[in-house]
Amino acid sequence: MTRDRVRDLRRRIYLILEQGGVGDGASRLVDRLLMAVIVVNLVAVALESVPEYSERYGVVFGLIEDVSLVIFTVEYVLRLWAAPEHLPYHRLGATRARVRYALSAAGLVDLIAVLPFWFAFLVPSELRVLQVFRMVRFFKIARYSPAMRSLLDVLYRERRALIGCVVITLGTAVVAAAAMHLAEARVQPDKLGTIPQALWWAIVTLGTIGYGDVVPITVAGKIIATVTIFLGLIMMALPVGIIATAFADEIHRRNFIVTWGMIARVPLFTELDAGEIADIMELLRAEVVETGDIIVRAGDPAHSMYFIAAGEVEVVVRKEHLRLGVGQFFGEVAVLRRSRRSATATALTRTNLLVLDAQDLHALMERDPRVAARIKDVVEKRV
Amino acid sequence: MTRDRVRDLRRRIYLILEQGGVGDGASRLVDRLLMAVIVVNLVAVALESVPEYSERYGVVFGLIEDVSLVIFTVEYVLRLWAAPEHLPYHRLGATRARVRYALSAAGLVDLIAVLPFWFAFLVPSELRVLQVFRMVRFFKIARYSPAMRSLLDVLYRERRALIGCVVITLGTAVVAAAAMHLAEARVQPDKLGTIPQALWWAIVTLGTIGYGDVVPITVAGKIIATVTIFLGLIMMALPVGIIATAFADEIHRRNFIVTWGMIARVPLFTELDAGEIADIMELLRAEVVETGDIIVRAGDPAHSMYFIAAGEVEVVVRKEHLRLGVGQFFGEVAVLRRSRRSATATALTRTNLLVLDAQDLHALMERDPRVAARIKDVVEKRV
Amino acid sequence: MTRDRVRDLRRRIYLILEQGGVGDGASRLVDRLLMAVIVVNLVAVALESVPEYSERYGVVFGLIEDVSLVIFTVEYVLRLWAAPEHLPYHRLGATRARVRYALSAAGLVDLIAVLPFWFAFLVPSELRVLQVFRMVRFFKIARYSPAMRSLLDVLYRERRALIGCVVITLGTAVVAAAAMHLAEARVQPDKLGTIPQALWWAIVTLGTIGYGDVVPITVAGKIIATVTIFLGLIMMALPVGIIATAFADEIHRRNFIVTWGMIARVPLFTELDAGEIADIMELLRAEVVETGDIIVRAGDPAHSMYFIAAGEVEVVVRKEHLRLGVGQFFGEVAVLRRSRRSATATALTRTNLLVLDAQDLHALMERDPRVAARIKDVVEKRV
Amino acid sequence: MTRDRVRDLRRRIYLILEQGGVGDGASRLVDRLLMAVIVVNLVAVALESVPEYSERYGVVFGLIEDVSLVIFTVEYVLRLWAAPEHLPYHRLGATRARVRYALSAAGLVDLIAVLPFWFAFLVPSELRVLQVFRMVRFFKIARYSPAMRSLLDVLYRERRALIGCVVITLGTAVVAAAAMHLAEARVQPDKLGTIPQALWWAIVTLGTIGYGDVVPITVAGKIIATVTIFLGLIMMALPVGIIATAFADEIHRRNFIVTWGMIARVPLFTELDAGEIADIMELLRAEVVETGDIIVRAGDPAHSMYFIAAGEVEVVVRKEHLRLGVGQFFGEVAVLRRSRRSATATALTRTNLLVLDAQDLHALMERDPRVAARIKDVVEKRV
Repeated sequence: MTRDRVRDLRRRIYLILEQGGVGDGASRLVDRLLMAVIVVNLVAVALESVPEYSERYGVVFGLIEDVSLVIFTVEYVLRLWAAPEHLPYHRLGATRARVRYALSAAGLVDLIAVLPFWFAFLVPSELRVLQVFRMVRFFKIARYSPAMRSLLDVLYRERRALIGCVVITLGTAVVAAAAMHLAEARVQPDKLGTIPQALWWAIVTLGTIGYGDVVPITVAGKIIATVTIFLGLIMMALPVGIIATAFADEIHRRNFIVTWGMIARVPLFTELDAGEIADIMELLRAEVVETGDIIVRAGDPAHSMYFIAAGEVEVVVRKEHLRLGVGQFFGEVAVLRRSRRSATATALTRTNLLVLDAQDLHALMERDPRVAARIKDVVEKRV
Repeated sequence: MTRDRVRDLRRRIYLILEQGGVGDGASRLVDRLLMAVIVVNLVAVALESVPEYSERYGVVFGLIEDVSLVIFTVEYVLRLWAAPEHLPYHRLGATRARVRYALSAAGLVDLIAVLPFWFAFLVPSELRVLQVFRMVRFFKIARYSPAMRSLLDVLYRERRALIGCVVITLGTAVVAAAAMHLAEARVQPDKLGTIPQALWWAIVTLGTIGYGDVVPITVAGKIIATVTIFLGLIMMALPVGIIATAFADEIHRRNFIVTWGMIARVPLFTELDAGEIADIMELLRAEVVETGDIIVRAGDPAHSMYFIAAGEVEVVVRKEHLRLGVGQFFGEVAVLRRSRRSATATALTRTNLLVLDAQDLHALMERDPRVAARIKDVVEKRV
Repeated sequence: MTRDRVRDLRRRIYLILEQGGVGDGASRLVDRLLMAVIVVNLVAVALESVPEYSERYGVVFGLIEDVSLVIFTVEYVLRLWAAPEHLPYHRLGATRARVRYALSAAGLVDLIAVLPFWFAFLVPSELRVLQVFRMVRFFKIARYSPAMRSLLDVLYRERRALIGCVVITLGTAVVAAAAMHLAEARVQPDKLGTIPQALWWAIVTLGTIGYGDVVPITVAGKIIATVTIFLGLIMMALPVGIIATAFADEIHRRNFIVTWGMIARVPLFTELDAGEIADIMELLRAEVVETGDIIVRAGDPAHSMYFIAAGEVEVVVRKEHLRLGVGQFFGEVAVLRRSRRSATATALTRTNLLVLDAQDLHALMERDPRVAARIKDVVEKRV
Repeated sequence: MTRDRVRDLRRRIYLILEQGGVGDGASRLVDRLLMAVIVVNLVAVALESVPEYSERYGVVFGLIEDVSLVIFTVEYVLRLWAAPEHLPYHRLGATRARVRYALSAAGLVDLIAVLPFWFAFLVPSELRVLQVFRMVRFFKIARYSPAMRSLLDVLYRERRALIGCVVITLGTAVVAAAAMHLAEARVQPDKLGTIPQALWWAIVTLGTIGYGDVVPITVAGKIIATVTIFLGLIMMALPVGIIATAFADEIHRRNFIVTWGMIARVPLFTELDAGEIADIMELLRAEVVETGDIIVRAGDPAHSMYFIAAGEVEVVVRKEHLRLGVGQFFGEVAVLRRSRRSATATALTRTNLLVLDAQDLHALMERDPRVAARIKDVVEKRV
């Protein structure tokens, strides 16, 4: 196998595992398979802990675990190998790219999902400890949901403020616990006799949980509890305030990333660097078309190319029907060739388009000969 | 019955059931009747489950159910028949419009509200299963409250992010459950002996419910619970953040829809398409008048027509007193005839008006002969 | 007593009860007294319900109630009498103004705070029912806190959406209750045997209260409860989202009202109508001065007049020291007389000022002769 | 020791205790030491309350308390002595500056952390009361976390509105309590027999805690509880709404303060007053550089100086590698000397820079000779 074929294979594996295009069937299949393995795994771990099932279906559970372990291990090794294909690591060497992946949040979850179990083969260890690690596999699922990823992003970006909330709540809890201990240690020595015990009450109260296993019974205790409850309601407002504010930002950022990602995925632009992509972003304008509207008609002169930001478009080119979705684009060939449209494009749903006018693209090419050279290069390959 | 009369009837039924104008007494009566049937129905189902009542008033409950079933069935059939009158389905054929309605959220709720009970007549089935379906009838009520509808819209539009929240919470729950199982399985084997049991504890804790039926008793368990409580507070902030952000958007969108809906309901404009309505929207300007202010005076020259966005207006025309509410409009005839006002309009409350200046309307008519033709057509019919 | 003196008295009582200026000692005293009576009253009602205290201090509690009743009754009658002085009712006749007050939220609370007790004197009635009405007196306190008033305003303005939330939550509760009833009616017939019983469980769960008096024990019940818990978390996000959005608006509106109120209270402007005040508002610009900064210096030419939006200012005029607070203003005389400053004003704290430039005021007076006439009139009276 | 050396020492102590620069090792060490003492202290107090440990390790706990007390006392005295170095108190005399610190929130916490314990030496007092005061030491930790400080700022600035929420909730609680007392006093006389008892139930319910120690059992009681639960959910939304709105503001304010603090800490600008710093702030523009980007290259002409707002920069000057973090700056010497760069600066992470262009700085110096004199003075000292 030549070196080039190895590289192609690595790229192919990367695309399948990490960033499947809209129409990439293999990638979608692998994604769904991995998600199924994760879910089956979790259900198996949960059921295995029921003695009744673990006795009867012990062999099945063992098999599921062994197969999952092999699959997740292979997945981890492949991801590690393909890490240098990851765009942000592009300029780093292959080894540094792999280290970066291994130390990223996703990489660590992938590792924790397999490592302890290989150890368990060698050194026999407590089953229950392993169960916790097997549950961590759940978080591998975050990879497949953009919504979950942006939620986790928000939590990660606001981690300092959120930790601040936790520390403030803990501080309030220790003071409340000392006060409650002072008030009720004598009447409820078994439940509030020590400060750590009272701390348990304080945390359960500040978190608005209220199990009811420890409840003040004196008037002083109830007054302290009332103050604690009000403080708890205000404490609880803090993380919500932080996250609500972060969300508005995140949503704007997400839109930005979508646009950026769309442009970066256009074959024409894949090799442009950040500065050049930023230039193009400024030239784009948004357009909304309604269901059934014809966007371009075969034979018309070509004034612009289109990126789909939301919705679906049907392109009919030489009697072939193509459905294009979010992140895909059309109309670029005619623009660059300054020819007439060869296809008709119709909106299948209400569709948000990003439009790049021909003259803007040509102006960009004139302004920056490097861009022009790359673009011409790509077009020659494509046509 | 000629075909036209059938169509007129269908349109009339549609207006009564779906989109009663402000002054449409029949529509309001039918709305209130249906709401009453829904509420009576729910109360009956709830009371019927009490053995004491079900024995004593069994006949009454049976009657209520039978009558309700007939009413809801007739309602469903009429809605299905009148579906092609629904504006968004206007361009589709009658059959496709009906399928669309049948598959919409409202259509499905309407169907579930009747279908199982017709089956129950044929095949005897478990009473309690039916009760759940009867309770679903409650959601038919959403149709009558704009506030509820926009709340449900927000939930629907953010469903992905909200499902993301649920998945993250579930993931945290399974890890917390495994950890708690590890810590307390031996001391509380009856309550935390298996992971599914521990999962129940974890969900009750992350949801800040805290029934208190399962509570950790060891130090390790309490530390795990403390971490879980803090994670629960942060998890809870996620849906709030999502919805608070979505709300600000929704409120702007709602205002937009109100304006749009008002214009679309003006007889003059009902047959304009979206693009033409959008043109008119841009020509509107907002005006606020205080209680008792006179908006137009009989005999004055007519410069503009008015749409009521909020509040109430009294129009006195030839000694007749008319009360106009949200969505209604006045002053259009004099504008189109370029005549003097024939009526006096006074604000009964603080009123938000949308004003369309005469010259803008005339300019619009000159710019687009199709619009002019339609407008003249309508005016001829009206006057 | 002449008619004018009665009017002056009415105005004085109005100012004392409703809208005490910053330096009005009588108004502040009455406010504090009434607040003290309210608090003493509530504490007395609460303590009276404890048999031990009610026996021992019965006479004291009786006295407190009688005195409070007289005070609140006198207060109510005076407020009713002085209602026509209320600015928004200015144009109405005296009777209509009083009806308006009697039917306003504040008026109703004031009435409920006294009416049932006069009835109780005539018709002996259940003590405990009266206690609930006496507790309603608490809400009289809202009058004295601008923060509380704006919170209640937010709740009032969003009442439709909040009721929508309650209805959606109730709807979810009835469906959850029917499902839980289906799952557990047989295993817990005493707790979940009827739908109304299950509804209690559903509401306690959706409200994230979790008393723990009813808890599912079957697997099916726990799965239904899990779904209910997640729905509860999402439901809970709705009112928060509504109120967070409303708050941002309210804060802007509150600032607007403060400015408006300040202008309206300037003797110069009290008789201007809304349109004229709005004109002046547009001419104002904000300025921030730091602690110790001199704002105007005696002998300097007068370019503008100042309204205090936040902070405190000391004015030294002919060796006399005056402290001015929020809502007060200075520098208007020199502006109107086009003379030099006769006083020096220093910021005692970081102060937000609204500045009205002399030329803008004079331009306003030229543009509108009515305004000019009124202003000159006021200045003549003042100097 | 001369007076100047005392002043230098005071300044040094101030810098170590209060506002350690990024590279100030002594300050960081002292900070970490104090935090460690605080945490050790709290853990000791908590454990000491467990009889088992307090018996066995009594001596250790006593030692920890004595050492902590000495450390916190010394810290308090030093802070008090160094208070006049605090920038905002700069213009006040030394005594007033110390009083200001002593009365500030931080100063009061510092005092409460030590005072009661010196009293306890003299007058023997209840151990448990002291424990509460020892727990207050926790809040000394707020000093070291910018996130916690800005959270506390938000709470402080919105205290009026939050107190309004508490008052509204209390008002709702007393009415709910009276109603519940009315409904269930007879059936549960031991739990709801008096209004204060019912108040405990109402607060636990409105706070969504739900301990479950008091639960309504009659139908009337459950209906009252349902209404209370819904009111509780709406009440809870108020503080969240307030804080979410305040947060957006706070974040903007925080960014402003960061920028201001950064400029104020640049040796060049430390002695400028607020007005001059504000002038410079307006001249700054933001710039973002990606990981690995070279910001300035040795030998290039110097056009601007840079402040790091976020991220890290490596500066290589004469083969020495320097890592600069948030709040640090570089490139100022070459700008003032109008010379070429003597160092190369590379972004180690995605970095936000504030850029001050050379010409703006020179213009500023020409416009204001005092600024110029100070700047030249500083540069002469630095180079």
